[in-house]
Parts: sequence; C-alpha cells; structure tokens
Amino acid sequence: MLSNSLEGTVSVGGNAGSGSPEWASVSMDCEARARYRVRLCESLLRPGSTVLPEAMADRKALLVTTPTVERIYGGTMRPMLRKTNTVSTLVLDVREETKSMDLVETVCKEAMSHGLNRRGLLVSFGGGICSDVVTLAASLIRRGIGHLRVPTTLIGQIDAGIGLKGAVNFCGKKSFIGCFHPPEQVLIDPAFLRSVPRRCLVSGIAEAIKMGIVRDPDLFELLERWSVELVESGFEQPAAQGRVLLQRSIQAMLEQLQQNPYEDRTYERLVDFGHTFSPALEAVLGFEIQHGEAVAVDIALSATIARALGLLAPEVWRRILRLLSTASLPIFARQLDLGLCRDALTEACRHRGGCINLVVPAGIGRAVFLKRRDDVPDSVLEHSLACLSTGTLEDS
Amino acid sequence: MLSNSLEGTVSVGGNAGSGSPEWASVSMDCEARARYRVRLCESLLRPGSTVLPEAMADRKALLVTTPTVERIYGGTMRPMLRKTNTVSTLVLDVREETKSMDLVETVCKEAMSHGLNRRGLLVSFGGGICSDVVTLAASLIRRGIGHLRVPTTLIGQIDAGIGLKGAVNFCGKKSFIGCFHPPEQVLIDPAFLRSVPRRCLVSGIAEAIKMGIVRDPDLFELLERWSVELVESGFEQPAAQGRVLLQRSIQAMLEQLQQNPYEDRTYERLVDFGHTFSPALEAVLGFEIQHGEAVAVDIALSATIARALGLLAPEVWRRILRLLSTASLPIFARQLDLGLCRDALTEACRHRGGCINLVVPAGIGRAVFLKRRDDVPDSVLEHSLACLSTGTLEDS
Repeated sequence: MLSNSLEGTVSVGGNAGSGSPEWASVSMDCEARARYRVRLCESLLRPGSTVLPEAMADRKALLVTTPTVERIYGGTMRPMLRKTNTVSTLVLDVREETKSMDLVETVCKEAMSHGLNRRGLLVSFGGGICSDVVTLAASLIRRGIGHLRVPTTLIGQIDAGIGLKGAVNFCGKKSFIGCFHPPEQVLIDPAFLRSVPRRCLVSGIAEAIKMGIVRDPDLFELLERWSVELVESGFEQPAAQGRVLLQRSIQAMLEQLQQNPYEDRTYERLVDFGHTFSPALEAVLGFEIQHGEAVAVDIALSATIARALGLLAPEVWRRILRLLSTASLPIFARQLDLGLCRDALTEACRHRGGCINLVVPAGIGRAVFLKRRDDVPDSVLEHSLACLSTGTLEDS
Repeated sequence: MLSNSLEGTVSVGGNAGSGSPEWASVSMDCEARARYRVRLCESLLRPGSTVLPEAMADRKALLVTTPTVERIYGGTMRPMLRKTNTVSTLVLDVREETKSMDLVETVCKEAMSHGLNRRGLLVSFGGGICSDVVTLAASLIRRGIGHLRVPTTLIGQIDAGIGLKGAVNFCGKKSFIGCFHPPEQVLIDPAFLRSVPRRCLVSGIAEAIKMGIVRDPDLFELLERWSVELVESGFEQPAAQGRVLLQRSIQAMLEQLQQNPYEDRTYERLVDFGHTFSPALEAVLGFEIQHGEAVAVDIALSATIARALGLLAPEVWRRILRLLSTASLPIFARQLDLGLCRDALTEACRHRGGCINLVVPAGIGRAVFLKRRDDVPDSVLEHSLACLSTGTLEDS
C-alpha cells in the first residue's frame, strides 16, 4: 500500500520541457456501488415490532414526516422509537407547492442541530414528496448520509418512494434540482394505505396500470379484477390481492430501474410510459390535477396513438381504456390539445438524447419505443385527441 | 428485454396471505462508473488553442469564474469561446466567507435561464473554492450535468480541483453540505500560476509537501531543491521542474483518491495527512490563515509526534521541518494548544469511523496511521507542542 509504483493510472506523453500542448494525462476511475432492499412488511407500527428499529440500528436519526402522517401515526410511531432516545422528529409541510430547496435546507439544519454525523440517518415517513426532499437532504449532508424510507401512499410505495431519486422544484421548474442517492432500505406496509384519501389511491393505481401495460399481464389482469375493491377498502379487501398488486408493481418497477439506475445508460426507459404528455398537462393544470390522473390521460393518449399507427389491436386498446375508466381515472382533459402535445414531444426530445422515445403499448405486457418525431405525425395526434375528446371509444 | 422473467432480482419469502411480518423483499443493485482525466496542458489560452473548445464539444455551457480571474484572463478567454456562441459567463465572488448554498443556487438559476439541458455543461475557471461551488451546482442541476475544471491556483491544480468533491459551508459549519460528482476533465496549465499571489502559491506548496512526505521521495527532493525558485517565479523558472512538481503531485493525489473515491471504503486515508489539527486551527483563526499554512502547521506537529513516538528518525524530522521553513510555511501557531489538539482528535474520531487515524510520517515517502486516541498520549502532544513553540528544532 505504501509502495511508490505509479504505473497503471498514469500515461505520460510528450516531453516535460518541449512546450507541447499536453505533456501528461492522469486518469481517475470512480466506481460507486450500492444495494438496497424494498421490503414488504406487515404491521410496521404494531407494538413490539422491531423491523424499523432494527433498520435504524441504533444510529442517531432524524425522522421527517408530514402534518397528516404525524396526526394519524405520530402517536403510534413515537413510542416505538422512544426507547433508542436518539431519534428526533421534524414535521414538514411538504407538498408539491412547497417542495423547494428551503425545505431541504430546513432538514439539513435540523440534522445539524441534532448532531448527526456521517453515520447519521434520515428517515422519510410520508409520501413521495416527503421522500423526494429527504433523499436530497441526505445526499447533501456531509456529502451523503444514509436514509430509510417508510412510504405511506400508494405512489410512494410502488413508484416515487422506491427509486434512487430525490428532487425539488426550483424557480418554477419541476424537479430542476435533484440527485441520485440510493436509500438503505424501503419498508412497505399496506396498512398505511387505509388512511390514504380515495383520490390519491386512484392516482397511485395509474402507476400500477402503467407497469402492468408495459411489463406484466398478470398485474394488468389483477387490476382489472380488483382495483375497484382495493381502492374502496384502502387495500384491506381482498388483502392478499392487495399485497400481490404491491409486490408485482414494485418488482416490475425495480426491474426497469435496475437496467439504468442513474439514467445514464439509455434514453429508452419503459418507466417513461405515461410520462411524456403528462408533465405538460400538469404544468397547465397546476395542482388541480393529481400526478396519477395526468399519467392516466397520457396512457390513454399513447395507447390511442399506438392503435392509430396499427401497433395495438383495437380490442387491447379498449381493454386499456376500460381499465382506466373502471379505476375512476380520467382518459382525457380538454387542456390537452395539439399544441400542448407537440410541445411535450419537443421537450421529451430535449431530455431523451434527441429522440422522443415515446413509449406506446403493443399489447398487454409489451411496449415499443417511437423514436423519431416523424413516427408520430400531427395527423395521428389530432385523430387520437379527437377520438378521446368525443369519447368514441368503440371507434376502430 | 421485454420478457417477463422476474428471477434474479427478486426473492420472495413467506406467503402472501399469511400475515407474516415480511412477505417479500426485492433488491436493487446500483452501480455508477465514471472516468475522468486530469490533463497537463500548455498554453490553454493561446489564440488558436483548441483544447478547451474540444473539451466543451459544442455543448451549451456556463463558465463560472471569479472577479480576479475574470480581470486577468477574461479578455483572453472570451474571444476563444465566442465562436461557439453557446457559452455564457457568470462572475461570482466566491471566497471561503461567501461559499454557501446561495452561490450554488445563483449558478443553478443562471444555468436555467441560459437554457442548459441535461447535456449542458458547467465550466469552473478559478481556484478550489470556485470548483467547490460549481461541482455542487453541477451535481444538482437536473440530478447531475457535466462539468469541466480549469483550476487557476496551485491548490486547485494539485489538490482541491482534481478530486470528485464539491461542498459549501452551511450555518457556520465548513463543508457541511456537499457531493461527490466527478468532473469530465480537469485541464491544468502552469501558465495560470504566474498570476497567483505569492502567499497562495506557498499555501499550495504545502499540499505538494504533504504528498511528497507520505508517498513520493522524488517529489520531496524536488521541493527541497526548487520550491523557492518556483514560488518566486510563479512556476516559470525552472519550467521543467515546475511541470514535474505538478505532475508528481497530481499522480500521487489521484492514486490515493482512486483507492477510495467516494470515501466509503476505508477511513485510513493518506491524503488526510496534515488535515487532522488544521481544521481546528482554521476554525480558530478564521480567514487569517491560509488553508495550506494550517496544513503546514499540522504536518509539523504530526512529524514531531512521530519523532516523539520513535516512529521517525530525528534527521528525517529535521528535513521535513526545514523544507516547510524554506518554503516560507509556518510550523507553529500559538493558538495551537493542548485543548485544541485534543478537540481536533475527538472530531477526527467522529469523522473517521471511531478511530483517530492520525497520519504521521515514518520516513520520506512513507507514513503510518495512529489508530487509537491512546496512541497519542497528552504527554506526547504537550512535548511536541513545546518543541515547536520554542523553535528548538535541533533538539532530539
């Protein structure tokens, strides 16, 4: 280790005294590895449950939560963690509207005043927006400390809370500032879904439908059969099917993320299904539309484009739109017009390496990428929008 | 790619309906790789030089620089980059006193208003503090965009500007907020050193001395022979030796960083030599002391501790202290007392996995780690401080 060999990392060209434009070059290889588990657990908050305390492993920790989650679960959570005497709680009003660097700095300040060192831990106890803020704070504190997530919403449990990413809005731009910072663990307990408002559960179902369409026919069928009952019962009935839904959605999502965890390997990402037109719709409608609702509209449009291009059989297209409607999700918004769609495709191009990479279904459990802007002519967009706006769903 | 096999990433335990505390667990592996080059170039700003434009590769870029660098080199830099018409410049008053999230957000805002997308580029053109801010901004913008560095100070060229790290001060805590975000390239041109104030050059020499002591006897000898002339001439005379100094310092530094680029593999880091007592000294003296000066005092103390413990021969100890003095670096500061040293060791413990991991020289080009607090008894600290404070350097 203390030898003085310099071979291997260094290549020297030219002559030190020759005045050549480059006389030496030293290269540096960096490799970061992380592994984390998304664990599906029961009764995380049951008195005596050791899952969360064990995951925290006696480290000094800051638990970050939202006013709603604090109100519903704070009284149960706190006694469970009180034994360790090293956990403090920060209740943050995290909403899409407040998701900014200010909140991230609030978490950092609290972590500092609580004396968290490099072994310190943040715990996000809330939905996807809460974990977005906590993930970014954890990545910044002392250049990166550990964080655990306990997602309490369906979107958090199957989508926003199980990946590597954190982000906040910045100067009006959604998720302009962010990071990749893998959590140590994600603990999923379906019991939290009992307290999620119906509209938010429905929004989460859109992300499950997304994964079913692009990857998992069994998941799609499960959703066709059980999504109404699961939403109405807060995932209590039928409980077994609720668990399978969570498990298959998480599996499908992580399988996709694993292929491109830092989004630097390919711009062809199946998880972008439903996420091409929806950002534009969310920008126009602001906080009037839930994320999952915008995703549902995007899924409907993408499926209709696929049908118009002859890539998707009409009966499969009908099945997709029927499932969205059954699940109480919208399939159209009148703000979605040709101009918005064109802008959305231009924006997608900017973010996907110069190709639109529009994901469209080619069946149930199967999707393809439309690469070039020409692959989606305006005439096809117009026809598809017209078809959805008039609700002529039985039209072939 | 579109198959539905779920093996490999998924392990399922228990029974979905059994109510067991954990019924499934999905694991996720993340691996990030990066490679960058530190290139030693001549005449980066010579009219017609294509090194920098080629590194920027026609991408939309934001060049971040300091008032001083702008004043001296702006007139030469700007015409060279004007051709591309995609580069804008931000002049930031980055100093240790102003190095905060505010400055990082200023860079992010400017990048946004300049329309940088995920392929966009930040270029840091200044010293180590400038690249600290730019690195952190680059890591945050759209979850990480590329950045290049053109360090203009000696510390920037051999230490702060060639690693993966960025950081800012936060609520009075030095570098509390930061990141690891490898640059794409670092371009080193000794010509910039002509304009560095003498005291800053001397401060940079301390980092070269550090690497010479722990890793490279040839570098140490080069410094003994040429550091005075190089500092006096701004690295112009003798030019060849100046280049070798840069090259060997960079080689030694990167070789160490490569073993632990994300500081997650070991707490035994040779590059921590000179960086155990110096943070405490910098905290007490504020901006009255240059970083390299504090490092020099730390090197002197660590070497004296090694001598007191019988780990370093008296003649080698004298050579180290003589080199520091020859290079106009301090070897003692009266604020360095027993209390400060004890606190510094406690703080080191907190940051180095529970061990002090004090790096002390065992020869020229050879160092060892003192692991436990007991390895450095207070009596040894007191004796060493006394020896340095009275300047009894010939005392064995």
